Amino acid sequence: MKCVFCRIIKGTDPGHMLYEDDYHVAFLDRYPITEGHSLVVPKDHYRMITDMRPTDVGKIFTVAPKIARAVMQATGADAFSLGQNNGRAAKQMVFHVHVHIIPGYNDRDTIWTKRNIPTDQDLANLAKRIRACMD
Amino acid sequence: MKCVFCRIIKGTDPGHMLYEDDYHVAFLDRYPITEGHSLVVPKDHYRMITDMRPTDVGKIFTVAPKIARAVMQATGADAFSLGQNNGRAAKQMVFHVHVHIIPGYNDRDTIWTKRNIPTDQDLANLAKRIRACMD
Repeated sequence: MKCVFCRIIKGTDPGHMLYEDDYHVAFLDRYPITEGHSLVVPKDHYRMITDMRPTDVGKIFTVAPKIARAVMQATGADAFSLGQNNGRAAKQMVFHVHVHIIPGYNDRDTIWTKRNIPTDQDLANLAKRIRACMD
Repeated sequence: MKCVFCRIIKGTDPGHMLYEDDYHVAFLDRYPITEGHSLVVPKDHYRMITDMRPTDVGKIFTVAPKIARAVMQATGADAFSLGQNNGRAAKQMVFHVHVHIIPGYNDRDTIWTKRNIPTDQDLANLAKRIRACMD
């Protein structure tokens, strides 16, 4: 399987999972822009949201605020952005649709082009805290 | 009416309108990050998406790809991002929920912090071209 997100969904690649329902999963971004940076991903493989049915686009964004709320609670973030990129000129890196949840903090600058590399242990601990905040 | 987006929706402030349905409007961002930068806005006033019912969040994102497609066609953009900010630390400026559609171009850098100031005539012409591309 070529697509890294398909492999994470199937469980053949590791991912720090936050959420799962019939159509979506959510996991921590491996290279977070800020602490708690998470991705909501449809289980079906679509390259871009323009390849999805509009109602399925609606579904994934229906789920995102619920996950964002848990991320905010677990991290103590002050704000959050949703982001969703389609195409190389929009800096899409993995060509499987994903919605970014990017927490914002009053006391830290959000540098969108700077990615961090936390340890797997740090990510595992954070994922556990976020899962505990999920309804 | 304090909220500038409420005034644009009511028609008391000018806006370069692209789209309207029972629940949403879309118009050009007055200070675009890139050419074609547009906003999809719920007619009802909510500060943040966490104040909206999840199904209403779904609805606004169901509409966004349709508008993005017309923006891409009218501008010749190569890609696009959806963005939606909640809270000052996420750089939310207008506290009425809005979804950004930000076109990406292969031959131009997208500088997220740099806003442009086109003339009203330029915006009016662009809005007309985008409306002509709407299904």
